[in-house]
Amino acid sequence: MLSLSLCVAAAVALTTVTAQAPSALASSLPTQKIQGIPAVNPVKQPWIWPLPQNWERGSNTVKVSKNIRFEGKGARQPIVSKAIKRYEDLMFKKEDYPMIPYNWSTTDTKPSRSTLNTVVIDIKTNDDHLDMDTDESYTLTVPVSGKAVLQAETVYGALHGLETLSQLVQYYPERKSYYVPNAPWKISDFPKYKHRGILLDTSRHYYTVQEIEKLLDTLSWNKLNVFHWHMLDSTSFPYVSKKYPELAAHGAYTPRHVYTAKDIKHIVQFAKERGVRVIPEMEAPGHSTAWGYGIPEIASCLNTQPYFGYTVQPPAGQLNIAHPKTKEVVYGLIDEWAELFPDSFFHAAGDEVVMKCWENDTYITNHLQNTNQTLMQLFEKFVLDMEDHVRQKNKTVMVWQEMLLEYHFNLPKDTVIQVWIGSEGVKEVTSKGYKTIVSAQNFWYLDLGFGRPRSNPYPEVQGAGFNHWNRVYSYDMRANLTKAEADLILGAEATMWGELADPNNVEDRLWPRAAAFAERLWSGYETPKGEELISADAILRLLPWRERLVLRGVRAGPLNQGFCTRNPLDCFQPPNPAK
Amino acid sequence: MLSLSLCVAAAVALTTVTAQAPSALASSLPTQKIQGIPAVNPVKQPWIWPLPQNWERGSNTVKVSKNIRFEGKGARQPIVSKAIKRYEDLMFKKEDYPMIPYNWSTTDTKPSRSTLNTVVIDIKTNDDHLDMDTDESYTLTVPVSGKAVLQAETVYGALHGLETLSQLVQYYPERKSYYVPNAPWKISDFPKYKHRGILLDTSRHYYTVQEIEKLLDTLSWNKLNVFHWHMLDSTSFPYVSKKYPELAAHGAYTPRHVYTAKDIKHIVQFAKERGVRVIPEMEAPGHSTAWGYGIPEIASCLNTQPYFGYTVQPPAGQLNIAHPKTKEVVYGLIDEWAELFPDSFFHAAGDEVVMKCWENDTYITNHLQNTNQTLMQLFEKFVLDMEDHVRQKNKTVMVWQEMLLEYHFNLPKDTVIQVWIGSEGVKEVTSKGYKTIVSAQNFWYLDLGFGRPRSNPYPEVQGAGFNHWNRVYSYDMRANLTKAEADLILGAEATMWGELADPNNVEDRLWPRAAAFAERLWSGYETPKGEELISADAILRLLPWRERLVLRGVRAGPLNQGFCTRNPLDCFQPPNPAK
Repeated sequence: MLSLSLCVAAAVALTTVTAQAPSALASSLPTQKIQGIPAVNPVKQPWIWPLPQNWERGSNTVKVSKNIRFEGKGARQPIVSKAIKRYEDLMFKKEDYPMIPYNWSTTDTKPSRSTLNTVVIDIKTNDDHLDMDTDESYTLTVPVSGKAVLQAETVYGALHGLETLSQLVQYYPERKSYYVPNAPWKISDFPKYKHRGILLDTSRHYYTVQEIEKLLDTLSWNKLNVFHWHMLDSTSFPYVSKKYPELAAHGAYTPRHVYTAKDIKHIVQFAKERGVRVIPEMEAPGHSTAWGYGIPEIASCLNTQPYFGYTVQPPAGQLNIAHPKTKEVVYGLIDEWAELFPDSFFHAAGDEVVMKCWENDTYITNHLQNTNQTLMQLFEKFVLDMEDHVRQKNKTVMVWQEMLLEYHFNLPKDTVIQVWIGSEGVKEVTSKGYKTIVSAQNFWYLDLGFGRPRSNPYPEVQGAGFNHWNRVYSYDMRANLTKAEADLILGAEATMWGELADPNNVEDRLWPRAAAFAERLWSGYETPKGEELISADAILRLLPWRERLVLRGVRAGPLNQGFCTRNPLDCFQPPNPAK
Repeated sequence: MLSLSLCVAAAVALTTVTAQAPSALASSLPTQKIQGIPAVNPVKQPWIWPLPQNWERGSNTVKVSKNIRFEGKGARQPIVSKAIKRYEDLMFKKEDYPMIPYNWSTTDTKPSRSTLNTVVIDIKTNDDHLDMDTDESYTLTVPVSGKAVLQAETVYGALHGLETLSQLVQYYPERKSYYVPNAPWKISDFPKYKHRGILLDTSRHYYTVQEIEKLLDTLSWNKLNVFHWHMLDSTSFPYVSKKYPELAAHGAYTPRHVYTAKDIKHIVQFAKERGVRVIPEMEAPGHSTAWGYGIPEIASCLNTQPYFGYTVQPPAGQLNIAHPKTKEVVYGLIDEWAELFPDSFFHAAGDEVVMKCWENDTYITNHLQNTNQTLMQLFEKFVLDMEDHVRQKNKTVMVWQEMLLEYHFNLPKDTVIQVWIGSEGVKEVTSKGYKTIVSAQNFWYLDLGFGRPRSNPYPEVQGAGFNHWNRVYSYDMRANLTKAEADLILGAEATMWGELADPNNVEDRLWPRAAAFAERLWSGYETPKGEELISADAILRLLPWRERLVLRGVRAGPLNQGFCTRNPLDCFQPPNPAK
């Protein structure tokens, strides 16, 4: 049983938990309170997700005016001024957080007489170019009285600062007002990794522009900065090409399930205004059945039946890498995308090719005989030529790991290798001197765990493992690497493939697990002072962050029973402690 | 490659897939179509979920008037007339089903000149009492011309008939009209199992009345007829008792997270109007920490810290089975619930008790010493007395399997045993001559698969297995049973426990897997003619049923990539066929 003294201490915070009893009950209430929630929880980290690199807090609670004004030249920068409008809404959500004892993250509740009315935004440069090397750092100070100040090198740092500011603001239900507890604040923040992304598959299932917008908003709240758009796959071809409209006309699921150039421009601009880069992936030469519906001559083993052995999942079909029309079409699409997607990165795929598809295509076997080369030589030349075409557009080429680790193609050293098959690939890629982006499926595939229908519609019953948030959070990309190898990690992407995800369930699949991922990428594995960031601390901030995501309209799944949200210290104890 | 003849055959149905190209593209379209979808798919079962017991269909397509009238005395029965209003909306949803080639389930498309304007509803009895023995059968005929006729013994059979009728109606996008294909229809239907339920846990996470209403609607669409309301648990006590208001006042998460008598009456009536019984579970004497927040003396090991060893999951706390106040409170609540929940079944729980909790409670150990009995004797007496109190209310007692199989208590033979720990329990229970309701967690727990935080917030990374829809569908409750044992199976419940589910993700967790479960319970394992119902046939109906659920507003997850919804026969092939 709890000691009496702890019970007494608990009574203060618990007022907010049970004090607002329905009026019909109020007269009969005894004074007993729920036990176990400390009045002022000694939570060592503030409720900011992801955790800032450097932060100092004080012991005053400053009221925030709902008419807060944003001043300074930075506030008038177009991207920032739009963001301010969004955050004026996000900071002052009408509801409170009923499952979170609102003030247990604070170290004191001493009210300041002052009200926060003004935030001054100061941005060093007007240049709003967004790329991997964009400076995303910011500093934010919230004094006990006077103006808050947000300083950043770029608008993108300012966006992150606004997000952090919005998370400092907490609703105090008993006062029906908004406050920043623990002022004064002094935060100086920057990301540990430059490339922090989510891959979304819009071929296996289609997402509307509005659904993609919602994802982009949620990325930005988690300080993620890359949307890897896996638009094309064997299942459907939703891109409406100017030069080859027949690809979408026959390859899209329906005429409504398409992305036009206008849609793409809108999404790229929407993302940019949230500090998110959009990197397109041109899936080729595998996973490309749907190209063949519109232009049959560029496809091999198109919808071969039965499909087993010709593809990792239905339908069968790869690009015919011997046909001259194939290069023409691929290069034509690269030309279009190079303009539509201004980002300096371009993903050229190259994953999960099935040789049997090509080996049974007489066009290809004849071509090999006539040109006296092997299938692997033809494959390598197709891929390297395609990547060169991308490079001619001044783009950095990203590819999936098979290009290097399975096919051992002669990739230029500036190629960025995306690891997916397993975490051991990080060592293999970086030890060869290549830069990498990590999407190890044994940790950061967020679509797994629901049976194994990814390669077979009749799945094995138990299926591939589900990557729990704690597993997502616990993975260290740098494991077994030298310092030089670790320095080749540009960042990472969590993936949301489309076999079992669509707009109906994608938010539950992604959040809050992608938030755990996001903190690793932004905050890293230890603080600048060298203190390790661990899940036992993280969960105390991830619980309220999930509640805040729900409040913002994201259908994030719960991390545990509600009791653990209310009473995390009574729930998240070290397992099997000595009695 | 597909033969040319198949491609030609494919062109008819595919008109609907690609014909509505955006106008900007229309002029450039070649005639190539997506391959592989047969024009008229020889699907042997109609798109009705769950599959009716007996059905005959013809070869005419009858237009359905949007002003369809429902006639007959049955249509004026209050429950039916309300249902008609709902189904007038459900039958004529404004959108079509873009991912389903709408007519591939039909065996012919010969249009009838006639329009279906009228449905005559004939119900034998006016008695709207709903219980396990309620007759749920119905017959439905839809002629080529003239009136459709729906006949049933009870209003509840009529509700099922309306649901079936609504599923016969399909939208034809090219005619912008609604049709019943394959008329004339003659359906004669009844459920194989009488008890077909879903358990929802509203203690670990709270659901609003509106969220429960949506669940009840979805149950009825799947012809499920039991809502097992697991309202109470250790985590929170949301029930506002008239006699003991302090239980909710201190045990609910917040004053908003409660169910009043008025809420319960509303939910019971809402469910009844959908043919769904509401069976309350009074979780006791384990899993009952939250009772102790309001009335501390009735709890043992209340919130003992650290909790490991005292409970299967935090927080620790069980009812103090020695204290006289405990019986008083439990019986008082039973008295209240017996009135609020008119159903003849009442669940008295009895699961997952942890002896160490009681063994360390000096009140209990003193009592055992004074009364010269063992803990197990005290436990058995508490449980059997509680169950007797329920029986005095003219209720059938349901309990969890531990009562019989682990504690070997002397349960009367009319006790219904709910099996949950594993499917082998079905044999163990029925071989002892007890009736059973099956919720084997290795098949029909729908909350599992997301790590193992059910007993420990820091889960093992891979976690308990996810029960894929095909595993849910494939489970035969009768395995290894004699005929006499199998006859003791009253039905089953799929469970949705609350550790990792709340209103944000519960629909994706439940649907469409609970639909697969529902068909097993309604349709059984073979047709009346003895033909086995198998998943390879079921998937062809489950795919469009999932789309219809989405259209009705349910956030059901996808069963596979969209390609498989569009082209099921190209996707769901026998694995590893001989080439």
